[in-house]
Amino acid sequence: MITVAVDCMGGDHGPKVTLPACREFLERHADAALILVGLPEVFAGFEHPRARIVTASEVVTMDDPLEIALRKKKDSSMRVAIQQVKDGQAQAAVSAGNTGALMAISRYILKTLDGIERPAIAGQIPNASGGATTVLDLGANVDCTAEHLLQFAVMGSALVSVLNNKESPSVGLLNIGEEVIKGNEVIKKAGELLRSAAKSGDLNFYGNVEGNDIFKGHVDIVVCDGFVGNVALKTSEGLAGMIGGFLKAEFSKNIFTKMAAIGAYSVLTALKNRVDHRRYNGAALLGLRGLVFKSHGSADVLAFGNALNRAYDAARNNLLDRVQVRIAHAAPLLVPAEVVQ
Amino acid sequence: MITVAVDCMGGDHGPKVTLPACREFLERHADAALILVGLPEVFAGFEHPRARIVTASEVVTMDDPLEIALRKKKDSSMRVAIQQVKDGQAQAAVSAGNTGALMAISRYILKTLDGIERPAIAGQIPNASGGATTVLDLGANVDCTAEHLLQFAVMGSALVSVLNNKESPSVGLLNIGEEVIKGNEVIKKAGELLRSAAKSGDLNFYGNVEGNDIFKGHVDIVVCDGFVGNVALKTSEGLAGMIGGFLKAEFSKNIFTKMAAIGAYSVLTALKNRVDHRRYNGAALLGLRGLVFKSHGSADVLAFGNALNRAYDAARNNLLDRVQVRIAHAAPLLVPAEVVQ
Repeated sequence: MITVAVDCMGGDHGPKVTLPACREFLERHADAALILVGLPEVFAGFEHPRARIVTASEVVTMDDPLEIALRKKKDSSMRVAIQQVKDGQAQAAVSAGNTGALMAISRYILKTLDGIERPAIAGQIPNASGGATTVLDLGANVDCTAEHLLQFAVMGSALVSVLNNKESPSVGLLNIGEEVIKGNEVIKKAGELLRSAAKSGDLNFYGNVEGNDIFKGHVDIVVCDGFVGNVALKTSEGLAGMIGGFLKAEFSKNIFTKMAAIGAYSVLTALKNRVDHRRYNGAALLGLRGLVFKSHGSADVLAFGNALNRAYDAARNNLLDRVQVRIAHAAPLLVPAEVVQ
Repeated sequence: MITVAVDCMGGDHGPKVTLPACREFLERHADAALILVGLPEVFAGFEHPRARIVTASEVVTMDDPLEIALRKKKDSSMRVAIQQVKDGQAQAAVSAGNTGALMAISRYILKTLDGIERPAIAGQIPNASGGATTVLDLGANVDCTAEHLLQFAVMGSALVSVLNNKESPSVGLLNIGEEVIKGNEVIKKAGELLRSAAKSGDLNFYGNVEGNDIFKGHVDIVVCDGFVGNVALKTSEGLAGMIGGFLKAEFSKNIFTKMAAIGAYSVLTALKNRVDHRRYNGAALLGLRGLVFKSHGSADVLAFGNALNRAYDAARNNLLDRVQVRIAHAAPLLVPAEVVQ
């Protein structure tokens, strides 16, 4: 039995989305149980033989500063859910709440794995191959050293090998065009470390990639610092939103375009599915001594269900152990340069 | 009469694209003249009363390392074109060649303006308002200080006020989501400098923006370091390419989707126009003592013509003087912090 703890209060819609998603999840997975965490009143009428309710008295809001979330709201649904993982009651936790708070609380309660200085957020971006490219870090670390980027590469490889069933997924280092000065000092050094890791068999390093390569699908994982990764993610969301909005407006302009939309329905639906981030919802917080998945705040029932699925798959396939093994194997490379000298 | 020097050899297609674009440009602008620079043989049969041919014996290739382009190929078409600006023969230069080489040669020959430590590349990205957002830096500077970002903001404001006829264009500082730690030290300090510049009337500072805001069109200018800007640009190109490729493949799948494509033709054409980067081709190299515009390497005749138009508009509207005036006015803020103390 795999048990996942769910922060039912998080996200833009809270229990209205999380509870139906939890019910559907339990119906999909006969070997899964859930620990539902939230304010007592939201569970009125919710019952399931494989769901246990744990109440919390507070909720972390999207606007809560880290300090409030971490030091003041000690009985928040988010924190209580993560505590279930710490206490061994659950193998993974899922929340759609405030990302910064989720990372800070997870780190405080679960601690980081040996050899990992900075946990990272790994999410999926749909690509032209019909699958998705895993990108990390998406915003947990605004400044990274070359060693951090190597750690991200090792953790990302473990994640993709577990969740996407690829034994040796390829890793690209996000850099800028060949025609301009190729990267800053951190990127150049990260490239060296990644090449060393490839030589020692710890990684399948593809080489440098550029922003457009995220969508080509010829690498499984793209590694970058959290500032760059967050900008790439938000930029993609912005452009996809603009194109979606444009198509909607143009196709509803007049009777002719409305008829055209009916004709084009199958294609437009296929496009929507392809770029639908709901299918890829559920970013992993990697590098912690416990599994935590972050759902998009705006997730609907389908999207939140996918985040639950990913947490379940990760737990069932021992992601934590497999990250740990890979990290241990790559340990000689992960030691900060100044210590080696 | 406005004279623009053109590196006719640059870009993926060289003279096959640049020469027809030059001819059309001369037909559009009766008060413009061109200095066409290239290998002698490419001009066979090209004549125009307002075009003067200046030959060069070398060509900078897309793969040339900076040192080769700068130190070895002293008679390259790129360098000779920029030299025309230096010598006062032309008011602006345009090239579709190697960006790194163009920046390095421009900087070496023209030098930077007083108060500017780092020239930047400012390009346009189409947005939902139907116009375009000017983004800089797009890749000239991989590491930037807060002062550099302020300089970019001042120069970008001058560019947009001249080319888009906006007296006081708004500037956003590219940052990451509120829900994560808000930016690194450089970004935080840049925010302070930009707020000071807004107070002293040197800038219309909107505040922090995220990657998706580039496409919303509620700010005219987005400022970031060259690494982040390049990733944002390439990511957008990659996603637009993926969606375009997807629509093409889906609409040509079978007879029904092909018929649907005919019905949807007007909408698809409108979408193509909206995200068509050819319309916004022509990035400005800002901060130099002379006007240089960079065309996309893959530009066709239409796109290269737009780069020529932008160079012409910039020259006709005294962009150089106006950048200089704005820089001088903002000078007290542009002094590096350590000098002030």
